[in-house]
Parts: sequence; structure tokens; C-alpha cells
Amino acid sequence: MGASFLSDNAAGISPPILEAIAKANAGDAPAYGDDAWTRALDARFADFFGRAAQCFLVGTGTAANALALATLCPPWGAVFCHEEAHVAVDECGAPELFTGGAKLVALPGGDGKLTLDGLRHSLAGFRVGDQHQAQPAAVSLSQSTEAGTVYRPDEIAAIAAWAHEQGLLVHLDGARFANAAVGIGCSPADISWRAGVDILSFSATKNGAFAAEAVIVFDPELAKDLRFRRKRAGHLFSKSRFFAAQFHAYLEDDLWRRNAAHANRMAATLARGLGRLPGVAIAHPVEANEVFVHMPDTLAAFLRQSGFLFHDWPPAGSGKRRLVASPTTAEADVNALLAAAARHA
Amino acid sequence: MGASFLSDNAAGISPPILEAIAKANAGDAPAYGDDAWTRALDARFADFFGRAAQCFLVGTGTAANALALATLCPPWGAVFCHEEAHVAVDECGAPELFTGGAKLVALPGGDGKLTLDGLRHSLAGFRVGDQHQAQPAAVSLSQSTEAGTVYRPDEIAAIAAWAHEQGLLVHLDGARFANAAVGIGCSPADISWRAGVDILSFSATKNGAFAAEAVIVFDPELAKDLRFRRKRAGHLFSKSRFFAAQFHAYLEDDLWRRNAAHANRMAATLARGLGRLPGVAIAHPVEANEVFVHMPDTLAAFLRQSGFLFHDWPPAGSGKRRLVASPTTAEADVNALLAAAARHA
Amino acid sequence: MGASFLSDNAAGISPPILEAIAKANAGDAPAYGDDAWTRALDARFADFFGRAAQCFLVGTGTAANALALATLCPPWGAVFCHEEAHVAVDECGAPELFTGGAKLVALPGGDGKLTLDGLRHSLAGFRVGDQHQAQPAAVSLSQSTEAGTVYRPDEIAAIAAWAHEQGLLVHLDGARFANAAVGIGCSPADISWRAGVDILSFSATKNGAFAAEAVIVFDPELAKDLRFRRKRAGHLFSKSRFFAAQFHAYLEDDLWRRNAAHANRMAATLARGLGRLPGVAIAHPVEANEVFVHMPDTLAAFLRQSGFLFHDWPPAGSGKRRLVASPTTAEADVNALLAAAARHA
Amino acid sequence: MGASFLSDNAAGISPPILEAIAKANAGDAPAYGDDAWTRALDARFADFFGRAAQCFLVGTGTAANALALATLCPPWGAVFCHEEAHVAVDECGAPELFTGGAKLVALPGGDGKLTLDGLRHSLAGFRVGDQHQAQPAAVSLSQSTEAGTVYRPDEIAAIAAWAHEQGLLVHLDGARFANAAVGIGCSPADISWRAGVDILSFSATKNGAFAAEAVIVFDPELAKDLRFRRKRAGHLFSKSRFFAAQFHAYLEDDLWRRNAAHANRMAATLARGLGRLPGVAIAHPVEANEVFVHMPDTLAAFLRQSGFLFHDWPPAGSGKRRLVASPTTAEADVNALLAAAARHA
Repeated sequence: MGASFLSDNAAGISPPILEAIAKANAGDAPAYGDDAWTRALDARFADFFGRAAQCFLVGTGTAANALALATLCPPWGAVFCHEEAHVAVDECGAPELFTGGAKLVALPGGDGKLTLDGLRHSLAGFRVGDQHQAQPAAVSLSQSTEAGTVYRPDEIAAIAAWAHEQGLLVHLDGARFANAAVGIGCSPADISWRAGVDILSFSATKNGAFAAEAVIVFDPELAKDLRFRRKRAGHLFSKSRFFAAQFHAYLEDDLWRRNAAHANRMAATLARGLGRLPGVAIAHPVEANEVFVHMPDTLAAFLRQSGFLFHDWPPAGSGKRRLVASPTTAEADVNALLAAAARHA
Repeated sequence: MGASFLSDNAAGISPPILEAIAKANAGDAPAYGDDAWTRALDARFADFFGRAAQCFLVGTGTAANALALATLCPPWGAVFCHEEAHVAVDECGAPELFTGGAKLVALPGGDGKLTLDGLRHSLAGFRVGDQHQAQPAAVSLSQSTEAGTVYRPDEIAAIAAWAHEQGLLVHLDGARFANAAVGIGCSPADISWRAGVDILSFSATKNGAFAAEAVIVFDPELAKDLRFRRKRAGHLFSKSRFFAAQFHAYLEDDLWRRNAAHANRMAATLARGLGRLPGVAIAHPVEANEVFVHMPDTLAAFLRQSGFLFHDWPPAGSGKRRLVASPTTAEADVNALLAAAARHA
Repeated sequence: MGASFLSDNAAGISPPILEAIAKANAGDAPAYGDDAWTRALDARFADFFGRAAQCFLVGTGTAANALALATLCPPWGAVFCHEEAHVAVDECGAPELFTGGAKLVALPGGDGKLTLDGLRHSLAGFRVGDQHQAQPAAVSLSQSTEAGTVYRPDEIAAIAAWAHEQGLLVHLDGARFANAAVGIGCSPADISWRAGVDILSFSATKNGAFAAEAVIVFDPELAKDLRFRRKRAGHLFSKSRFFAAQFHAYLEDDLWRRNAAHANRMAATLARGLGRLPGVAIAHPVEANEVFVHMPDTLAAFLRQSGFLFHDWPPAGSGKRRLVASPTTAEADVNALLAAAARHA
Repeated sequence: MGASFLSDNAAGISPPILEAIAKANAGDAPAYGDDAWTRALDARFADFFGRAAQCFLVGTGTAANALALATLCPPWGAVFCHEEAHVAVDECGAPELFTGGAKLVALPGGDGKLTLDGLRHSLAGFRVGDQHQAQPAAVSLSQSTEAGTVYRPDEIAAIAAWAHEQGLLVHLDGARFANAAVGIGCSPADISWRAGVDILSFSATKNGAFAAEAVIVFDPELAKDLRFRRKRAGHLFSKSRFFAAQFHAYLEDDLWRRNAAHANRMAATLARGLGRLPGVAIAHPVEANEVFVHMPDTLAAFLRQSGFLFHDWPPAGSGKRRLVASPTTAEADVNALLAAAARHA
């Protein structure tokens, strides 16, 4: 009894993805991305995004983010991001390493979102063109956000339009891109290039893959150094076909959508149920597959004793917890958690 | 008809490894290496090496090498390696990136091996302690070498003993470690810590895995920064269990040995057959799973027309070719190639 | 008529320092610091600080700061500093370059000072030992601060004691060290090693030198890599004697103290005079040689028309201005400015 | 009795340069290069080179070289240079730090010169466009060379023309630029932009300045990031006027030419005298201000006992010595050395 809501990273591999890996394991294939699976990825992503795109496979979301930022930003550049952004607080300096020392400017913002006002104010604090200072170069957004919310296409478009006016490029950390797109019912294009995103970290790992991460670039000019950056980061895989095969399985037959829809539905059910309990408050709108909720320590302890796993969330002592649903989250486990919580109340 | 001898990287995944991945795909598991599979790796490698060891999983051999060198060598350090070493010529500057700018000192040496004389002579050219120069910090050996030969335990021990006397640490690039150990019939310990190796890039990918690479450290003191270096390189995998499971399958039931023995035997057969042909000369002793051979352009062209794939090898115009055998190389294909070559002659 | 209060960097060279350079220009001397002047610096600084110290000459304060931080902090480290600190906002990423990518954590604090509460709160936001995050490594203080105030010995000691308990080392950016020491009437030791400072950027440039900057280290163990770091930063000067000679002239006969006392007195006079005017408010206690003052745009414009130069200070539109006094600031110019301001009022 | 021929770095400051510093010390001047002296440098150098140029003052030749290479070369680039080049063996990894990890490819060549054949052969060893390898980006020449010889305009032009055809840019390390130009009687243009040099490290320090080094860029497009790179290297000096003033004094009234002509003449006299002695052999043509000479240990020891200082030169045990003449080398000292040597013979 009990179940894990620790992270979508804790879930296993969706069967179609595992099968695709097995199926790709027939005979030899050229190494380092010259195989048929990897070569077909650009077309696959072009189809997914409705626009020509270049796909650079890498091993982790951290690598995708750091390489994407290095593509947008010189060593003396500054990148504006949310103060809870993965690039700012969870990557042990990978963006700094891969950019050669760029500065992440961490900004506050409700429900995990950057605001235009916040960006404008922060940019105003920089002396653009002054050699004494890091130079503003990019904006990085997380979709879904670190608060489990989702930027609407017009929110991204407003930020991107302003950014481009200011000479800044736009990165989207799509660690939960599918959950976001499904969560607000929009197309992949709507929350990426069509809204002004220049470069994208696209992840399937949290949504049912083994390890499938990519930097997606819409402007070929931007992409021209990426293969060198990737190789020297140690992220060019020799048996690339098995990484590419994951993405093919993920994008065809709408696996990405089905997985995300399930996870999002489970999160919504959790949120609905928990939100009704006395003393419990949902902390942010639940728009993807993460639920942030304030609950008393006694309830949290009771749920854990009942076998349910989830993280306490900062700030320490705030009573905030995070529960994440994944493609493999069982509805029965969600109901069991809600039943236990109701019992406690 | 025909077959690929391009690279052991072109081969697929050994069934026991694929099964281990599938088997690890049961239920949730903590992310980022806190799962049971990853936690059991240190013990697994301790058993393999006959000595306590720490294992740091990473995605590629390039990452393993670069992180290992960064562990041994300050940003102003110098690393002595063979002029054909992977770290020197095939990693697009990954060692330079991860060390923060260390210098690779590329030395010549017959059959892909560094020599003590060569090392002594090169070290003598450095002014140790002089702030104007990069400071000698490490020696990096490839096992098997880039020429397909294998350092004997006493060769490594002699170099390592000298290195340690000089205050240098010793790295072994074990991209084909299993092929080397099997090739000369020695234990993993004999060509690693027992011979004085301080840190090891240990690869299973070329010998039947999907993507299984690790930095192995024998001295816990040396290892203490590695998890930070790995994370900021983007090489900490969220679903670590599926990488760890590959190593468990690889090391138990001697899969590593069986795979390497097969590949080595196929290479030996190739070498024996090719070496008998007129106008063909084996370039280096075939001691692992790679065959370097001089053959006329007409023979090479004929073999390729017959469907056999292999690389020309530098220097350009030398008539040198490389044929690599893998765990999945079929004896029938080897024989077919030899028959075709004989036919041409 | 009129005068510049733009910066102490705008002032010239004190005659004794220029004379010392000329005097050192007799005959040949070994290059790269093996000359008598440079060799005598450690003893000179030991005398100045009352404790053995190692002095590493560099060309600029930015270099001193960045090399000092690189000495305290690994590439994945984090350095806590004030949000207006020079290292954070005025060095175009030099600390990031020289540390290899460390993170500057910029904290607010009244009158330019870090507070223990602010530091504690910020540190609490880090997961120490967690490989996903930059690891807290150091605290950097500016003395005098960017607001022209001076940390008292007990303020530094309290921060340093806490820092050391937490495993953090302490850097002091002494761009205006002499002004600070003279400003509060304490000894050099009182606001450096005796208060717990581990490493110090010591500048004479702003206080009458040509270009005299140094990293001062009290713990020989800390210092051991600095000469390599300095050389690869391009900060080992061939004709080192002419840089060293500046420091000798600066430290002997109390030139440092006389220059700072004059500049501080001029700043105090400015502040006293301006503070009496209607509509004018001194923004921070004037404890060294900088005056931050809120004044109406009309007054600022009038003073500038009268030939007086000074900077507007952020935030833009706040009416804040900075006036800096230097060793060469003439009392007559101060009085002239005050007279003009009074006339305008 | 006796004199130093250790290095031109050991010499003092030429009186006109010291006077220019003193003269610039009148009143305040804007900091960080906005002063009149620094602002006039581009025009000064345009006059010197006969073509528009941008001048970036830095503190040392190492900084100039490393920043110049960082301007030409991406982090995954390769720079071809002579195996004795200062950038390769005497800068403790500064080029690697400032480029972000580029690779210096050190090539042999008689009399300290790169050859077209050597460059062609080395380039042929690179797989251009292949993501696995560092990518050829630049050629770096030293003028005069590390062997005291001077590239003729047509030698530079041949290398530069080839380099440009191959997509490589050309750097000239002009640590002894004046000695070279004077040594072969050509104009500054002849051995720089007119011969195809794209970027230049221009030094006056070895030829009579205190510390006057600059990166000179002929193509404004190339120069656009340099001021950011310089600042984050800590090489933007606050009292820039005193560095700029040195160059003005150096370039006006032909001080550069007079100083170099004297030093070169002294070197020629030394070489002529020493070359006549039995058992002594001049190692390389003496074309600038350095004399490389093979002499018996007994003669070297005798000269040193007689008070003359000079360096033994690698390779150790070869009997090679280096004697360097400077603007302050006295003809009497040269004659005294020659007399002593003759006495010993």
C-alpha cells in the first residue's frame, strides 16, 4: 500500500519506448548519430512543431539547458530567469560552465512565472554596452514552471516580443513541455517558435522515456556551433540510435500526449481532493502534473506513515509539499491517498 | 552479404543488458542515483576489481575521460598522453573544458604505447614549479591502445611508478578495458589499481551495452569532488537505474568477458587471414578487438564493393585501414570477408 | 573653476610614488618579481599587517578580487556578497571566469553592508552537500562598502566567525582599505586577519598610486596555487619592480594614511556642507571618502554648469548622486562646490 | 664590472617614457580609458601602421596574446604555433583560460619559424568540420621569433594567404615587434596588416616601457567583443592614461626605432665578436636583439665569474646560451664581455 509522488523522474519507461529501443537493436548502425533513427529526428520534430527544426540529442535536461544557454549567450552575458528556475538552483553551475561564465539573473514572480515588469525592472539595472558589466543576452522560461503552472501562448509571446526588442534571445526549458501543452490544450508550436521561442530544451524523460533529451533550434544560424559544444560536453552518444528511437516512439501515435494527459489528470484529481480538506490549501494553480499544496505536518506525517512518498518544499517550515504525477501513476493510488487524507481529517 | 567492421560502437546491445533494463523497469525508483541499482554499483565494482572502488556513472567515454582528468589535474596542469589518444584527438576539447584549460601533451610511441623514455624526455622539457608554465600533473594511458595493442601489467606499473615518483597521477582510458584484460589474460586488478592506476574510465558501451560508462576511483580522497563535477557537466542521469542495470548485467555472469573474448577472437581471425595475403601487412600486433592493416587500395575497394565496411586510417595515403570486431560480429562475416579478400588476391 | 568628484580613480599619482618609480629605474633588475623590490614586499606587508603575509601583485582590483575568489572557491562554489558589490556588478564576469564558473549570491543590506541575518537566510536556501546545487564556499565583503560606509572590526568578526563555522572562507575587497581603516581609526590588522579575513584584495590605486593592487594571503596553504593562477590570468608583470616600488612608497612614511585622511576629511567636509542644505539628504553615513547624497535635479544641474563633476547613482530617477574625494582633492574645490550649492539654495 | 644580458625585461624605463608618465600626472582625468591619452591611441596607432586600427591596452604580453587568440578562436578551436612560441610554453595556460579551452598545436621549424609545409601537414591531420575534433581556427606567429630571427614580409604573407584560404585567422605576437621591424628595415605595416596579419600583440615593455602592451585589431568587426573580454580578464586599468602615455612617448619621435636599433646593434656586435671565437657557434641568425650561441661550459662559467649574466637555453646540456640586448645595454659592457671571452680563449 502507498505510492510514490516524489517525481516523474522516479517513474519507469513507457512500454512503447522500451519496445522501440529493442526494435532498434537489430544489426549494426553507424555510430555518433549517423544512423537512420537519429537522421530522421529533424523531420520528426519538424512534423511535431510544424516548422523546420534541428534536434541535438543530449543525455540530460541539465545538459540541454546549459548547451542551449551557451548557444544564446556569450561568456560575459546575463540570462534572466525565475528565481526557482532549474538552471538557477538545480544544476550545480552547469550553465556557468558551458557558457564560460555567464551570469544567471534570478527574478521573483508569482506562481513560478517571470513577469514583464520584473524583466523590465531587472534589465533597467544593467548598463547595456558598458564593458564593466555582464551584458544582457537571453531570457529563460520554464514550461511548465517550477510551480506547476503553465505560461499561456500570449504570455510567452509578450515576453519574447519584449526580449527581441531588447536584443535578447529566448530559451524555453521544456522539462515538462508535453505536460504544459496538454495542460492548456495548445499545440507544440503555440508555446514555442510561434510565441517567439528561439531555442528549446525538449525532454521526454520525465514523461515516460529512459533518457531522451534534446536541444531544439529553429534558426539554423543559431545551431551552427551546437554540435561542437555538445561533443566537448561529452553529450554525443556513440549508440545514438537508442536515444533517437525513444523520441520516435514518444512523438508518434501521440504517446507524449497520452502520457502527459494521464499524469495531468492524476495531478488534477489529487489537487481537487486535497483542496477540499480542512487546513489544506493548494499553493499554485495545478495546470500540469505537479501539485504544490500546504498541509499540516500531522497530515503529511500520516500520509507518509500510510506509505505515500512526496517532498517537502521550500521554504523550510512553510508546510508546503510537492506531489508529482507521472505516466505510471495509478488512479487507485491517487484515490488511496485521498482516502487516507480524508480519514485523517 | 557484407558486414560492418566500422566500429564496436556500431554494434547493438547484448540481450542480457537489454533484459536488465527491462527488468529494472518495474515500478518507481528514486531518481538521480538513489535507486537500488546505482547504490549497489560500488560493491559490484569492488567485487570486479578486488578492491574498494567508487563508481560515477556518466553518459559517454568522453565525459568519463574529461571528468577523470579534471579530477587529477588543475586548470594549469599538463597531462601526458599518446599522440593518438582519444583525449587528445577525438574529444573536441572536452578535457580542456572540464579541467578548465589544462594542456594535453601528445607524445609519439610505437604501437600506440607511451614509453618511459618518451615520458621522461617530455617531462624534462617542463620547468616544474615555474609559474610561467603548465605544470605536469598526470599521465593518461589508453587500454587497449588506439593501435589495438595492450599494455602489459608491468608496462603500466613501470609508467605508474615513475609517474608517482614525479608527483603525477595516472589515468587509464578503459574504453576497451574488457578487450584488453581478456586479450592478455589478466585480471581487472592487474591492469588497474594493482599496476598503479589512480582513476579509470570504464566503458561497457563498446562491448555490448547501450550507454554504460563510468569513472572508477580507488582513492576516496580523489573522488570527493566528482559528484559536483559530474552534475555540472550534465552527466547525472535522473533515471540512473537504467544505466546502472546495464553494468550489473555486464559484470555478472562474466558477460564482459564473453563479449570481449568473442570480439577479440574475431579480430584475431581477421588478422590471421588478412596477414597471409600478398601485399597486406598487419600494422600492429592484434591484441584486442581491433585490426590495423595495410592493404592496397584495390583490395580495399573490392572489399567495400563486396559490402564490407571499415575505415581508412590516417595518415592519409598510407594504405592503413581499421577493422573492428564487436560482440555481435558473426564468424560467417569474418570468413566471408577473408574469402573475398583471398578471391581478390 | 569647478573640479572633479567623479572618482578617486580619476586622481593622479602621489609624488612619493612617482618618485619611487623613478628611483627604482636604476640599472637592470631581474624580471617577473625576482627583483629586490618585489622580494621585499612580503616583509613590508607583514610589517603593515602585524603578521606574516604573502603578497601577489596584480594589475587591477578586478584581477585581485577574481583571483582571490578563485583561491577560496571551487568552480561549483557560491560566494555571498552584497548586491552592490564590485565583484557582483562591476567586473563583467571576471570572478566567474577565474573561478571557472562559481556563482555570486547577491544579497541586500542597508548602507552597503551584509548582515548576519541576510547571510544566514541565504545560506539556509542552499542544500549543502547536495550535488544538484552550487556549494556555499565564501563570503566577500567590501571595505569601505559600495555605500561609502565602513564595517567595524566586530561586524567583520561576527560575519567571519559565522562563516568559518559554516565552512566558508572570507574575502575582503579592500579597494578603499586605507580609507576604511583611517575612517574608523583602526589598525590594518583590526579589519583584516584579526577579524577573521582569510584573503584580501589590497589596493593603493584609488589612494594615490599608478597601478598598485595585490592579493594578500595570511595562510600560506591558501596561497600555494596563486602564482599559477596569476600567471595564467596575465597578471605577472615582467618589470615587477615598478609595481612593487609603488607599494613600498605607499606603505612607508604613512603615505597610505595621509592620503586617506585627506580624502576622508574632504568627503566629510562635503557631506557636512551639503547635508545642511534644504532639499538635500545624505544617503549613507560618510565614513570614508565617498559621499552619497540625494539632491534635486536642479541643484545637480547647477553644480555641473558650475564645472563640478560627479555621477548620478542608481536607481535611476532617485536623485541620488555620488561625490568622491581623493588624495588630490583641493579643499578650495570642496569649498567652492559648497558655496555654489549654497548659492543655488 | 659585468652586466646583465638576461632579458630586455630586466632593463629599466626609457627616460622619455618616464617623463611622459610624469607629464600625464597633471590634474584629474576620466578613469578606465575615457581620458585624452587613451582616446588618442587609435589615431596614434593608425598613424604608426598606416591604416585604421583599434588599440586595446592591457597589462602584459601574456594577456595581449591570450585575449587576441580568444578573439580569433572559439573554445573548440585549434591554433597553430611554433613549438617554442611564448603562447605554447611560457604562459601557464593563459590562452586556454581566455579562449575557454582551445588547443595550441605546437609545430617544429628551423630558426624559430613556422613553415608552410609544416602548417599544411599539421592541418591535414585535422578533420575539418568533424565534431569530434578541435577545429583549426588560427595561426600564431612570433615576431621576432623565439630564436631571435625575423619573418620577412613575404614569409608572413605566404603563411597568411594560405591561412586565409583555409579559413584561419592570423595572430602576430609582437613582443619584440620593433626589434623585428628595425632588424629587417621594414615598416610596421609590412610585417602586420599588409602581410595579412589580422590581430597583433604589440609590446613596448621589452623595448623601454614600464608596462605598455596592447592588442591591435585592424578589422573593427573582429574587435567588437574585445572590451568585454579585457574587462573580465581584469585588464582594464582605471588610471589608463599612464599606460597610454607610455605608448605615445614610445611612438612619437621614433623612440621605438631608436631603442630597437640600439638593442639590435648591441646584439649584432655581441654575435660578431662571439662568433669569431674558437669553439663558439652562433645558433641562429641574429636579426633582432637576441643572440643564441653555443659555447663551452668553461667559457660560460668564466664569463659569469666575470660578472656577466645570461641564461642557459634548452635543451639542457646543449651548451646553448641566450644573451639579450636592450635599449639600456651599454656598448662598453658588450665590449667588456667580448674582451673577457677573448681573454678566456
